[in-house]
Amino acid sequence: MTKQKFLDIQSSRWMEGTGPHSDIVLTSRIRMARNLKDLPFPCLAAEEHREKVLERVQEAITDQQEIFEDYQMIDLSQLSSIERQLCVEKHIISPELVKEAKNSRVLLKEDESISIMMNEEDHIRIQSLLPGLQLENTWRKAEDIDNALEQCLDYAFCDEMGYLTTCPTNVGTGMRASLMMHLPGLAMTKQINRILSALYQVGMAVRGLYGEGTEVVGNILQLSNQITLGQNEREIIRNLNGVVRQLLDQEEGARQILLNECREKMADRAGRAYGILSNARMITAQEAMQLLSDFRLGVDLGLLEKVDRRMLNQLLVMISTSYLQNLEGKEASDYDINITRAGLIREKLANGA
Amino acid sequence: MTKQKFLDIQSSRWMEGTGPHSDIVLTSRIRMARNLKDLPFPCLAAEEHREKVLERVQEAITDQQEIFEDYQMIDLSQLSSIERQLCVEKHIISPELVKEAKNSRVLLKEDESISIMMNEEDHIRIQSLLPGLQLENTWRKAEDIDNALEQCLDYAFCDEMGYLTTCPTNVGTGMRASLMMHLPGLAMTKQINRILSALYQVGMAVRGLYGEGTEVVGNILQLSNQITLGQNEREIIRNLNGVVRQLLDQEEGARQILLNECREKMADRAGRAYGILSNARMITAQEAMQLLSDFRLGVDLGLLEKVDRRMLNQLLVMISTSYLQNLEGKEASDYDINITRAGLIREKLANGA
Repeated sequence: MTKQKFLDIQSSRWMEGTGPHSDIVLTSRIRMARNLKDLPFPCLAAEEHREKVLERVQEAITDQQEIFEDYQMIDLSQLSSIERQLCVEKHIISPELVKEAKNSRVLLKEDESISIMMNEEDHIRIQSLLPGLQLENTWRKAEDIDNALEQCLDYAFCDEMGYLTTCPTNVGTGMRASLMMHLPGLAMTKQINRILSALYQVGMAVRGLYGEGTEVVGNILQLSNQITLGQNEREIIRNLNGVVRQLLDQEEGARQILLNECREKMADRAGRAYGILSNARMITAQEAMQLLSDFRLGVDLGLLEKVDRRMLNQLLVMISTSYLQNLEGKEASDYDINITRAGLIREKLANGA
Repeated sequence: MTKQKFLDIQSSRWMEGTGPHSDIVLTSRIRMARNLKDLPFPCLAAEEHREKVLERVQEAITDQQEIFEDYQMIDLSQLSSIERQLCVEKHIISPELVKEAKNSRVLLKEDESISIMMNEEDHIRIQSLLPGLQLENTWRKAEDIDNALEQCLDYAFCDEMGYLTTCPTNVGTGMRASLMMHLPGLAMTKQINRILSALYQVGMAVRGLYGEGTEVVGNILQLSNQITLGQNEREIIRNLNGVVRQLLDQEEGARQILLNECREKMADRAGRAYGILSNARMITAQEAMQLLSDFRLGVDLGLLEKVDRRMLNQLLVMISTSYLQNLEGKEASDYDINITRAGLIREKLANGA
């Protein structure tokens, strides 16, 4: 199989680093869980059922050809596990799909802003992903796809509960809205833990860069709605937007305090991060994430020369172990990966884009 | 008092970084202690005796005008304590002279390769300082001065013991030969402590960058003869040369091992050191010394681009707190000094010379 464009690094729309508040909000994401009425849910489905799901979705796509003309169907079982992991790190597919690849497909829009996963935890998962803070816009795009598919597909839906899903936490709207945020100011001013527990209390879930069960590294976290039932989509988005506005205020306030009270120290930290990133010969993903966070903050605060935010976002993916393993074309050792990672970072920073 | 050339950084001959084995041996130094026969030793001398010492030496200098024509007489009591400390860090005078400045003078050769201190621990101390490993040459230069002065001065000398000195450890030749060595290989391969105790056992003294009582930082140490009695000058130098050859072999061996067994790790360490030095905004002397050592080793091993060794030697002095305080012209705080130090290092590395 020749290398596909989606395994390349340059292609994701979200990496552009544009959109409102993109210094703090890296991406806005909407994910909708849908299941077909007359087929067993994936956890109970036999292979023939999984095949049926693919057939039905294929028919719907063919029917709505004008909408899906710049989409590509990817058979995940044709990818290596490293390539699948890379798709996770590019935020194209969910970690769920890395494990269960047989009869799993993803229909991917050219710019990777929309992906439709099949035979994941649910029959169908629609994901819309855009840079910056633009939840409504992201939601509208997901809903367009949802409506187009619903023209041809019978979703499992109950008037009282809403959309039915494999996991009860998704029942209702089946929607999860999430934001990937860079919050170094709150981390450095030691406010982050207090704020995280407050977020849990207002029904928000906080996760690491790659979703559920992943750690927060490099001060980047994913904030999403915990509740899908008893609120409609607009309410979910309004709630999340309200919380995010507060978080933005707090992060901006923390950054201002850092700038006022320890400008030199911040410039030093950012400078050192840049110095190490552009000169190290071996580096772990964890260290690189932390240094990238320091570097990004220094740029955002105007303490370092401006750099292309796209480069910083690309680096977030490039430093992941699976991207690097994919690049090396084999199961490379940690030692080799650390060397390759450092080399890539040096090259990227030297080119400046 | 206007800024004098000897308070500038560019002027010292030893900083050139030339001479044999200059990748490991930074400098060769000879110091001779001499006292005048009919005057009380400095520890017992009254002001009038100290003045007499100055008069007599001045007469000797005038008598030997052709030898001393490119020398400058510096009255240490006219310097601030910071300026005196800077002279110590440039290795022009001994730490002794920082404390006791009244009636203390130093006669300094234009290129700072020879300095003659008056009213230090002894009446007269002649120092000769050259880059690289060249003890004989350094000794010959000191001896020329010693002979020239002896034409006009009556030294305290006894046939049985040799030259008489204030401290009994200097009696005999009154000579101390020392080498400033950069031994990161032995430090990194954890051999240094074992070797240091072996050196003590063969009558060698090991000290930090600024002599007796100073710590070894940045893997730079001073090696000198402990014994001045029962050996003549040639024997002292032959002994020290023998020990140094062994040390050179061991350091070179250690560097080769590091290069063979962890080349990437060494390149990483050196690269990071360079990255931090050229991007930090505040840095302590101690950290800067260690990073300079890593950087210098990386250059010596060919893992980093070649840089002018003179620049590295100048940096050794420039990062000292007293040089920086002298530069700022006031008693600056540690915080400000750390910022100034980082700025100077950045500038120096950016200019590359």
